[in-house]
Amino acid sequence: MLALPFWAQANDELLMLQEDAGQWTLPGKNYSANRYSTLNQITSRNVKNLKASWTFSLGVLRGQEGAPLVVGTTMYVHTGFPNNVYALDLTRDGAPIKWAYKPNQDANVPAVACCDTVYRGLAYAGGKIFLAQLDTNVVAIDAATGKEIWKVTQGDPGQGMTITAAPLVIKDKVITGISGGEFGVRGFVTANDINTGEQVWRAYSAGPDTDVLIGDGFSSPYASHQGADLGVSTWKGDEWTRGGGTTWGWYTYDPELDLLYYSTGNPGAWNPTQRPGDNKWSMTIFARNPDTGMARWAYQMTPHDEWDYDGVNENILADLSMNGETRKVLVHFDRNGFGYTIDRATGEVLVAEKFGAVNWATSVDLETGLPVRVAEKGTQAGRNSKDICPAAIGTKDQQPAAFSPKTGLFYVPTNNICMDYEGVPVKYQAGQWYVGAIVRMYPGPGGNRGEFIAWDATTGEKKWGIKENLAAYGGALATAGNVVFYGTMEGWLKAVNAKTGELLWRFKTGSGIIANPMTFLAPDGKQYVAVISGVGGWAGIAAALDIGPEDPTAGLGALGAFGDAGMHSTKGAMLYVFGL
Amino acid sequence: MLALPFWAQANDELLMLQEDAGQWTLPGKNYSANRYSTLNQITSRNVKNLKASWTFSLGVLRGQEGAPLVVGTTMYVHTGFPNNVYALDLTRDGAPIKWAYKPNQDANVPAVACCDTVYRGLAYAGGKIFLAQLDTNVVAIDAATGKEIWKVTQGDPGQGMTITAAPLVIKDKVITGISGGEFGVRGFVTANDINTGEQVWRAYSAGPDTDVLIGDGFSSPYASHQGADLGVSTWKGDEWTRGGGTTWGWYTYDPELDLLYYSTGNPGAWNPTQRPGDNKWSMTIFARNPDTGMARWAYQMTPHDEWDYDGVNENILADLSMNGETRKVLVHFDRNGFGYTIDRATGEVLVAEKFGAVNWATSVDLETGLPVRVAEKGTQAGRNSKDICPAAIGTKDQQPAAFSPKTGLFYVPTNNICMDYEGVPVKYQAGQWYVGAIVRMYPGPGGNRGEFIAWDATTGEKKWGIKENLAAYGGALATAGNVVFYGTMEGWLKAVNAKTGELLWRFKTGSGIIANPMTFLAPDGKQYVAVISGVGGWAGIAAALDIGPEDPTAGLGALGAFGDAGMHSTKGAMLYVFGL
Repeated sequence: MLALPFWAQANDELLMLQEDAGQWTLPGKNYSANRYSTLNQITSRNVKNLKASWTFSLGVLRGQEGAPLVVGTTMYVHTGFPNNVYALDLTRDGAPIKWAYKPNQDANVPAVACCDTVYRGLAYAGGKIFLAQLDTNVVAIDAATGKEIWKVTQGDPGQGMTITAAPLVIKDKVITGISGGEFGVRGFVTANDINTGEQVWRAYSAGPDTDVLIGDGFSSPYASHQGADLGVSTWKGDEWTRGGGTTWGWYTYDPELDLLYYSTGNPGAWNPTQRPGDNKWSMTIFARNPDTGMARWAYQMTPHDEWDYDGVNENILADLSMNGETRKVLVHFDRNGFGYTIDRATGEVLVAEKFGAVNWATSVDLETGLPVRVAEKGTQAGRNSKDICPAAIGTKDQQPAAFSPKTGLFYVPTNNICMDYEGVPVKYQAGQWYVGAIVRMYPGPGGNRGEFIAWDATTGEKKWGIKENLAAYGGALATAGNVVFYGTMEGWLKAVNAKTGELLWRFKTGSGIIANPMTFLAPDGKQYVAVISGVGGWAGIAAALDIGPEDPTAGLGALGAFGDAGMHSTKGAMLYVFGL
Repeated sequence: MLALPFWAQANDELLMLQEDAGQWTLPGKNYSANRYSTLNQITSRNVKNLKASWTFSLGVLRGQEGAPLVVGTTMYVHTGFPNNVYALDLTRDGAPIKWAYKPNQDANVPAVACCDTVYRGLAYAGGKIFLAQLDTNVVAIDAATGKEIWKVTQGDPGQGMTITAAPLVIKDKVITGISGGEFGVRGFVTANDINTGEQVWRAYSAGPDTDVLIGDGFSSPYASHQGADLGVSTWKGDEWTRGGGTTWGWYTYDPELDLLYYSTGNPGAWNPTQRPGDNKWSMTIFARNPDTGMARWAYQMTPHDEWDYDGVNENILADLSMNGETRKVLVHFDRNGFGYTIDRATGEVLVAEKFGAVNWATSVDLETGLPVRVAEKGTQAGRNSKDICPAAIGTKDQQPAAFSPKTGLFYVPTNNICMDYEGVPVKYQAGQWYVGAIVRMYPGPGGNRGEFIAWDATTGEKKWGIKENLAAYGGALATAGNVVFYGTMEGWLKAVNAKTGELLWRFKTGSGIIANPMTFLAPDGKQYVAVISGVGGWAGIAAALDIGPEDPTAGLGALGAFGDAGMHSTKGAMLYVFGL
């Protein structure tokens, strides 16, 4: 055997593991995060026979996002706060617990979690499980024993910092984000050595280029993205120091281009009047060198956001046939309602089309990369702008889409929610809510609060859609069996025909689903589908009031928009595993 | 239609409903509480095909006992504290919530719940659901709308009083008990008018006959049970005023004899040295006139308890063929380890045999009704008595047995736990723990902590047994399909052959099961089996330390005895419904 450096082994290991259909070793199945499995035992013909095989209580009553990992014969399940990790032995009937890792966290941390205490999943590499806790501690855990190997702290919850995003391991580094865009946190991404925890680089979302890690290798097709220190000059005064652009979404990686992709959240405060300018690099997709953190390109989808259209949604990597040639693209369904197909080597926008009800812009100008805005749907302090679509929670939020190379379609769970929005001046105080907006959300056109759609990213066209009464706030899974799975906030896990959207099967889980289905082969050689049920998140928080500077926490629940999820599905998180 | 008084209508209604195999309208299926269903779609041949049909999160992380009710096309599900009630619509796919009743209770009440905040179920009559809350409020809820009709308070949690037992409606009265035997509560049973909530009678478990409701109609076959005011004279001084005998178990009723049956808990304090005497009427089965509360007979199983062998276990009514004649009996599997077969008209003990490992007594003398004690297994203050079987949690605790008239067998989930026990002087303080004992529990002979057994109550013989690693702490269900169901603390719901005990099917629920399976016909005409999963109760509390006067709450968990249930099954309550 070659004496490879450890990072190369880890790299090789993850590249190999992501190709193994039986395992699910990365949050989005593979570095492309297409959430597509080549397993095909469960098909559109036999999925009607799917039944619950076993279940596992997560012991948590708050919202559960993400999906478990399967590495070898062990399933690793995370919970939201308190961020417990359970290793379940798939070789034994009923998958009993091998070990449990239960971190101690300050009970006050959830008070600075804007949108419930969700956590979107674990990462694995080199015999370690990587856990990012709500209190911003990132922990490496021995995957065999559950023992802590190292722990590092990424930020200060006292300053409003939390972590909700799933980490991603690239070579010998674990990449983690930061949450806190409603607390004036300046977003960043951090790379730590997987063996020691030592920080290798950190790239901020705003500030001088030396902080943002923009340098010689950076280029953009768009004029508005060129210039020195845009992370400072596109803000008023020092607003960039509390400017949001947090990094609580999903991470992807192209091993061939050696580029890490992720995107950034809303600029802070929500009140746009106090931060004139483009507010770079909020609302931006970044492509970075994973070894150095240096940016290759960046694309800001919503300059000077006036609606809380966080740009953090996943960037799914796919090679698509467009106009007769294969293009290496990333596809991004943004909260602002546009589905972007972007050349992932250059950052050039190839397609940008509405994938839901959108009225704040008519289109995206592919020459300039800029949205073409509708003036009356703009917002500002002291003016209540009515009937803006989508609402702050976006046409899609955290719920990740899937892509099937077999059908060539993207499967996108969407929200259909609109809003009234008024900016309100707000003063920054460390660790306090920094929002400054009064928002009222309600169902969008047609009255259905959600729709699960199939999308052709080569043209930007919806192929079919399944209307849902509540927002389709859970992720998607596509399989080679021609079946697509997704959950609903009423608690249904649904299986639909990947080509037609026909409903093939459904099961009523105990709570609402806002997590992501995944699939794996158990040691018995059979294909199973697993999903975590447990309502919460931004879509399930208990309040339904407006958001104002007096009480900026009120209303983030926005139940008026989503229906009373608490009545549609009780809380209480449970893992369900289904088999034929 | 005859103009019947309302109580007669209610009586008729419940008598009719209990005969309807498709519904489950009383906590134990029927007034006999035999937990036997004549439904036979699910059989020992096809039960292997049973699969989860739907699930429902209870939104509670603590122990869940009892079983839901099915009345008409609605399922009524209770939770432990906060004692929520959910009405689920069985006519609709996935059984969505029709209404939820969520009482407000003082958050401090659980501090006086000795053994987790369990609740054993609801009662139904005349269009009302009766809920007994942990804070001792008994509520009548409109079964159609979930609106509160009346509410009465039975006791003061500040004095250590709680309610965990399921109510029972007899004619126009709802019967409820009281918990708090570890807080010096003097136990009682109360009958309230189902229409107004007005108290009709209350019968104490200790004190003068006028309090205990012992009068002219009372008789007993046993000399030790005859005499005036035994509820005072069998105690030292005024110990009876804080003497326990709480009534947190199950209630049954014989409509023909018109007798209510229930039994009473341990005498307080646990330290026997400070309460010499028989301590009547702790540890006693009572037969009472349900209209007046007056006692017909009483039988004390464990006079002067020295081990916390609460007598509260269910009294299952059955008509058994014994020595060539049919005897109307009640069968009672006591915590003290003896299975009693008793003439339910007279209180005469016909059979009393050990149904598990028992060494504190060699036998029960059928002439005197008294246990024949083993001196060295007695306990007292200042002496640590070793290796007593069973332990304080008994050979059986709250987990109710079932009886199949078809096989003639009783199905009994049992504990196999022994203990060391030492009395310690303890002073009474209102609302404070009043225990006074140091107890260490550990697995009994053979090392298995539980066994699920089949029992012939005509002879007092075990017919077969299934050893369980943990205590079999959930209830049993027997069906005409020759299938018996029970749950385990690892989370398995098991189906076994009623004749042989052969394991036919099992499903891994998300948490440990300490609740009771039930069965019903849904509007689709199919038979379903439902069980609540959610570990806790005395068997699942987190601590495993000794019980002493310094910290009498420590150790009630007794996990040393039950295995670390927290590791075998996470917490989080969920209702599972299974069908073919």
